[in-house]
Amino acid sequence: MAKAVKTAITPTRQADYPEWYQQVISASEMAERSPVRGCMVIKPWGYALWENIQFQMDERFKETGVRNAYFPLFIPLHFLEKEAEHVEGFAKECAVVTHHRLEQSGDGLVPGGELTEPLVVRPTSETIIGDSFAKWVSSYRDLPLLINQWANVVRWEMRTRLFLRTSEFLWQEGHTAHATAEEATERTKMMLDVYADIAENYLAIPVIKGRKSALERFPGAVDTLCIEAMMQDRKALQAGTSHFLGQNFAKASNIKFQTDQEGEAFAWTTSWGTSTRLVGGLIMTHGDDDGVIMPPRIAPAQVVLLPIYRKPDERSAVMAYTAKLAADLRRIRYAGRRVTVEVDDRDIGGTRNWDWIKKGIPLRVEIGPRDIAADAVFVGRRDKTPRDKTSLARSAFLEGFTALLDEIQATLFQRASDLRDAHSRQIDDRSEFDRFFTPRNPDKPEIHGGFAHAHWCGEDACEERIKSDLSVTLRCLPLEGPKETGACICCGRSSERRAIFAKAY
Amino acid sequence: MAKAVKTAITPTRQADYPEWYQQVISASEMAERSPVRGCMVIKPWGYALWENIQFQMDERFKETGVRNAYFPLFIPLHFLEKEAEHVEGFAKECAVVTHHRLEQSGDGLVPGGELTEPLVVRPTSETIIGDSFAKWVSSYRDLPLLINQWANVVRWEMRTRLFLRTSEFLWQEGHTAHATAEEATERTKMMLDVYADIAENYLAIPVIKGRKSALERFPGAVDTLCIEAMMQDRKALQAGTSHFLGQNFAKASNIKFQTDQEGEAFAWTTSWGTSTRLVGGLIMTHGDDDGVIMPPRIAPAQVVLLPIYRKPDERSAVMAYTAKLAADLRRIRYAGRRVTVEVDDRDIGGTRNWDWIKKGIPLRVEIGPRDIAADAVFVGRRDKTPRDKTSLARSAFLEGFTALLDEIQATLFQRASDLRDAHSRQIDDRSEFDRFFTPRNPDKPEIHGGFAHAHWCGEDACEERIKSDLSVTLRCLPLEGPKETGACICCGRSSERRAIFAKAY
Repeated sequence: MAKAVKTAITPTRQADYPEWYQQVISASEMAERSPVRGCMVIKPWGYALWENIQFQMDERFKETGVRNAYFPLFIPLHFLEKEAEHVEGFAKECAVVTHHRLEQSGDGLVPGGELTEPLVVRPTSETIIGDSFAKWVSSYRDLPLLINQWANVVRWEMRTRLFLRTSEFLWQEGHTAHATAEEATERTKMMLDVYADIAENYLAIPVIKGRKSALERFPGAVDTLCIEAMMQDRKALQAGTSHFLGQNFAKASNIKFQTDQEGEAFAWTTSWGTSTRLVGGLIMTHGDDDGVIMPPRIAPAQVVLLPIYRKPDERSAVMAYTAKLAADLRRIRYAGRRVTVEVDDRDIGGTRNWDWIKKGIPLRVEIGPRDIAADAVFVGRRDKTPRDKTSLARSAFLEGFTALLDEIQATLFQRASDLRDAHSRQIDDRSEFDRFFTPRNPDKPEIHGGFAHAHWCGEDACEERIKSDLSVTLRCLPLEGPKETGACICCGRSSERRAIFAKAY
Repeated sequence: MAKAVKTAITPTRQADYPEWYQQVISASEMAERSPVRGCMVIKPWGYALWENIQFQMDERFKETGVRNAYFPLFIPLHFLEKEAEHVEGFAKECAVVTHHRLEQSGDGLVPGGELTEPLVVRPTSETIIGDSFAKWVSSYRDLPLLINQWANVVRWEMRTRLFLRTSEFLWQEGHTAHATAEEATERTKMMLDVYADIAENYLAIPVIKGRKSALERFPGAVDTLCIEAMMQDRKALQAGTSHFLGQNFAKASNIKFQTDQEGEAFAWTTSWGTSTRLVGGLIMTHGDDDGVIMPPRIAPAQVVLLPIYRKPDERSAVMAYTAKLAADLRRIRYAGRRVTVEVDDRDIGGTRNWDWIKKGIPLRVEIGPRDIAADAVFVGRRDKTPRDKTSLARSAFLEGFTALLDEIQATLFQRASDLRDAHSRQIDDRSEFDRFFTPRNPDKPEIHGGFAHAHWCGEDACEERIKSDLSVTLRCLPLEGPKETGACICCGRSSERRAIFAKAY
């Protein structure tokens, strides 16, 4: 038997995946629970990652003509009642503001100044943005209207998990209005492609682009597209959605325009969103038993410099060399920005190196008197084992720096793709399907088969049956899957293509 | 008598300054009122300005070692009771969440799921961030802790004005903890200097750095520093504040650390903030009777290209020339970013040019067949009169582009400085002081003297007296003012320096 390797995170992924996830976040100092039920505090290392996701995504949005704006946090209660399916889908989990003042009483502060109409803290902004769109759109010349908002939203949750499901979370929500259904459909797909680009080429998370079934659609949408990723416990994570809303919300909000034919018509609208959930997806895709692994193109920092000196008289030479290297690295551009460099000169022994491993920084560079003598640096890559380090000439390190980052980026994407492929299977037999989703070990219900590509007849009843039997949901009908006749995995009726079934976050 | 010049904005600043302000915002499409009482919708042109302010400020913050993080929107009610002065100052104007669900009743949706403890939508985050700081700080090695948050906050307001006073607004709030009072004091001043730098060198708003009197301090602070600017109606606008909180909040939140002497001590904390109010300040500092004037270094876009063609066969040549020029301009870097170029090819006649004047874009460039024949462009500057345009060779325009922007930037700052100087006066006589603040025209109470630099003994009573007599507040004790003995403008007792008194937003 191989000697057990000590890992920085306890428990390991194999031992207890959900607890591993919490421990990784804690060890990397990305976020923590707050004293407010269901809300999280996003710490600097986690927030910097979110800022980088924002930066990349925002640039892509703007390239497609989208402009940012900001709409109120609060939604008057009656707004939510405008679109019937929408209210049904969201009404049950909102934070409701009923008072606008606090007053001193004998027992301390109590709410005062009751509002005539309660206000809901936005769970999503279709209705309040629709109200603005109705004012902004009057002619076909005002279309398309392409708006995005970066904001916090609140959906009350009883069982929460950092980044994946919290009562308050940060997100972006795009909202567009168009003159034709075709154009709105095209925009729905375009934004899904932006999400897939960011997920795959920046977060290094391979995703499947697909269409939701009627049961899994956004409340009020005509069509919901999504990107789905596989986590290391083989569960699916919905990493972004893009909705074609038809004219449902335009009718509810009265978004009408004069057409170029002198008629009047309701606009066709879309909405699309991604959130801090992506951070959870990144952790669960790449993290290992030593902590987070940050893909270089989106990492809060690409490299940390760790000056090493024993004698006080070595200090100034080492620090000067370090400062010079930091300055040289910061002049390099990578993924559209300057390289971010951390310098950690804390005198805390080996803990220092492990802190950065747990944080998942792509490169750790040790700089000691011997390295300086050789004009070299000692480099550790986060995608390799902690002790696997290489001495590189300083000039070679600088010249090859972005190529090295790209290599790490590619490695992470490949590993995640391999994992997904290894745990995806075409299944045509219901008993095989059931076995695929049965945990091998009853103590670890989270470890099961993965993604089953199976035929589905298109009926809600079959989808619900599978969900109630196995806690497995229909993740999506892949957009790029081939047409292929087969028999529904549930009822045996004929089907024209496969859907992806999985357990999911 | 001179012929009345028609202006794009009605009324003019002279005729009705407050109404002019609302009309300018409407005409420039920067923001509008929302159906939610007291909340605004920030439209793309206004939001892009805010994004640029964020970009510049965020960079300065990070240069001083500050890191961004995110804390919950909600604050448990009992948190607000921790710091006695703080609760007194903020308790009266909060949005209070009392329920976490909506339920269907006969009358439609009603709040359900009452919370055991109400939650307050953050009016500011000292108490909730203090709770995190208490966990993050245990040793002197953890200090200084330098955190900033970009967020929305809510302070219920009955009388609102877009950007200046709304129930919800966007801001940044910095929070830091230090081992010594000296270091915290230094940080308080350092962040004030960052604010002054952004105000003067980006927003082109001259500001006076000063210290608030005890009565005007932030609730719970030991010392509040501020920057104060003069608007064109001669009223003061507080454009940013930086607070030294002493150990008050550290004691309330229990932020303690092991000192390097093996003792235990409470940390010394600061907080500092600026908000979307800066946008209102920019409008009121630079706007004229034709609309907003955007300082180039912070403008949502630096230049708009206006292709002009009469015959359909001219179109492709004009559009190609325009596209090429846009591409060339976008390669230029200005104020740390690429130049932002708008291209407006709407076929709407002269309205198009005026739309951009009202929006305040620094440069308008007309491109027609005759210009192309001469390889020239026809340039209008927003800091000059609308009809004052110049033909420039294309190459000269490109080469001189950033210098031209800098010239406009300098002109705007100079104009604002001149206005402030013209309406600032050292006053040593109470009757002169009263006359200074008496409107010349009772129909326009907003037009009065400006900033009075007058002696003040330091007593609350004198400050309150002036406030109740004249609606004039003590804006600040300038940090850079000379020491000078004199007699208090109110009571005649001796004073060691002048304070600035003004009517204020």
